[in-house]
Amino acid sequence: MKNIHPNKYPTSILHKYQQIIEKSLKQRIPKNNSEVYRTLQYSMGWIDKNGNKQNKSLGKSLRASLCLFACEATHGSYNASIPAAAAIELIHKFSLIHDDIQDKDQFRHNQATLWHVWGIPKALISGNILRIIADKCLEDLVRKGTNIDRALFVIENLTQSYLKMIEGQYLDIYYEGFPGISIEDYLNMIQHKTGALIKSSLQIGAIIGTSNTSIINSFSECGSAIGYLFQIRDDILGVWGKSKHTGKPVGSDIKRKKNSFPICYAISNSKNKTKKFLIDIYSKKIITDEDVNEILNVLDNLKVRKHAETIATHHGQKAINALNQKNIPHANKTQMNELVDFLLSRNY
Amino acid sequence: MKNIHPNKYPTSILHKYQQIIEKSLKQRIPKNNSEVYRTLQYSMGWIDKNGNKQNKSLGKSLRASLCLFACEATHGSYNASIPAAAAIELIHKFSLIHDDIQDKDQFRHNQATLWHVWGIPKALISGNILRIIADKCLEDLVRKGTNIDRALFVIENLTQSYLKMIEGQYLDIYYEGFPGISIEDYLNMIQHKTGALIKSSLQIGAIIGTSNTSIINSFSECGSAIGYLFQIRDDILGVWGKSKHTGKPVGSDIKRKKNSFPICYAISNSKNKTKKFLIDIYSKKIITDEDVNEILNVLDNLKVRKHAETIATHHGQKAINALNQKNIPHANKTQMNELVDFLLSRNY
Repeated sequence: MKNIHPNKYPTSILHKYQQIIEKSLKQRIPKNNSEVYRTLQYSMGWIDKNGNKQNKSLGKSLRASLCLFACEATHGSYNASIPAAAAIELIHKFSLIHDDIQDKDQFRHNQATLWHVWGIPKALISGNILRIIADKCLEDLVRKGTNIDRALFVIENLTQSYLKMIEGQYLDIYYEGFPGISIEDYLNMIQHKTGALIKSSLQIGAIIGTSNTSIINSFSECGSAIGYLFQIRDDILGVWGKSKHTGKPVGSDIKRKKNSFPICYAISNSKNKTKKFLIDIYSKKIITDEDVNEILNVLDNLKVRKHAETIATHHGQKAINALNQKNIPHANKTQMNELVDFLLSRNY
Repeated sequence: MKNIHPNKYPTSILHKYQQIIEKSLKQRIPKNNSEVYRTLQYSMGWIDKNGNKQNKSLGKSLRASLCLFACEATHGSYNASIPAAAAIELIHKFSLIHDDIQDKDQFRHNQATLWHVWGIPKALISGNILRIIADKCLEDLVRKGTNIDRALFVIENLTQSYLKMIEGQYLDIYYEGFPGISIEDYLNMIQHKTGALIKSSLQIGAIIGTSNTSIINSFSECGSAIGYLFQIRDDILGVWGKSKHTGKPVGSDIKRKKNSFPICYAISNSKNKTKKFLIDIYSKKIITDEDVNEILNVLDNLKVRKHAETIATHHGQKAINALNQKNIPHANKTQMNELVDFLLSRNY
């Protein structure tokens, strides 16, 4: 994958908040020169592994942007939600550091992963530190004008969705031993692993922005749909994404035996011989390039990609519909439409 | 090490609160049968790795006991501090799960470690979940009567000391490549790694119990001293502890090239040939049994054990002196005296 640059984002939500988030994160992560904080600056793309300054923007900051967006849409200003957006982004980044250890991934965003440079023990600890810095962001909610009861409510909400996220990560690993989990199990897993934090991002932005429960629920529902859409698109890219965009070969999720949407759908919707064939390959210790090609053929025959795109579109529509109430400004509804279009068609 | 049983603890602080803590922790960790929660029940000693009930009490619950003790000593009742004590204990347990991954320790308290049974990825996630359960405990502070401002203050205090603890763990690993760190570096490292959470335990108990700053400071100072005492005693046991008590062979910390007090002291207080000898052994890739014996001889010659015990006793006295003010009940001062005696002489 190419290095991502803020102005590459075609949708205004991602474009608009990118620099605000970057600035806030730079204030949060201590600049002191101890190794542990250098590992964190590296993980944010601000320095290379030798400590030289660089300016890689690693990732889309989707979650933080959603939080700021919901606050601005409900309150007219995103300012009060900056601490929460920063916390959410850091929790996401923390989870990537630990994910890379779990999955033994050596590269992310074209950069060697933390454990790959500094070893597992240090990467594990660095991740834990980033998680605490996230907690500390939330201490600023009250200082930024959110009343103390609402701040505690936000903290509880984030803790809960973070718990769901980690439970989902556990399920993801747990299912690795079980080829052919049902679509229901898959949806439950991604609702935890990916959906919880994305939903919480919009929900928390709205909670900080307004006390109108109906509006908060709308953003919550919208977030829930975005979560499904985001992960299903991720799964599509994990199978059919082009190497030059994703940085991974076609079929990479198959090679890693991931229980992603295309596979779960194919196993659930095929019969006898084909089902057995897919399960047999997924039960092998190592999946060869030839196996990948054979699975890709089966997926083609079953029109899995088309179906996955339909489901993703369905969730995109749900996200848009969720915000269809008169209290939400038209401009923000348009922004959500654009974001959904982008998320449905993104190649990276 | 033999399984530890509550009534084995000779000091009333540890004995008194053990069952209250156990009961509270049992309410916190979900009993549902999903694998991730089974790993946590296992890590607490409540079930074996096959899911069969057992009743191992793993550890002393020192930190939680100190928190309840400080609250009772300042408030007449420990009740309001139970959520904080549970959170502190779970943060400690969480850190042990990740520590065992970092150090590749296969056994703790005579039981296979989590990663050794379920693998690193799952153990890493289980640790993260335990950490969130700790956070969730704190949500009950307000429900148990602590006012919301003070509750937020407690949360911030714990976050800060937890950050220091993790920074200390990083330093500990970082120093592994540098044989012969100075005593100052060593003390700074253990003040973070061990001292921060122990200090916070007493401090938070007192903050919940009273608003009298002078009393809170006394407990804080006491906790700081207990932290040093505890870790230095741990380091003494890591070198000279008997296998039947500690579950580890004599010299186990030397074999692992740990920068523990005896080694730092010996390197700092030896000259020329002896210093070089110690550093050379600590620079070897693998330390043999013979190396361990040679180092033990050097430590004997330098009377390191005696000196370490003197320093530990000095901190024990500081802990006792810190509580020497009229507002703290005599009975609680006596309890602290007993605890210090126990911590200074413990063999496990």
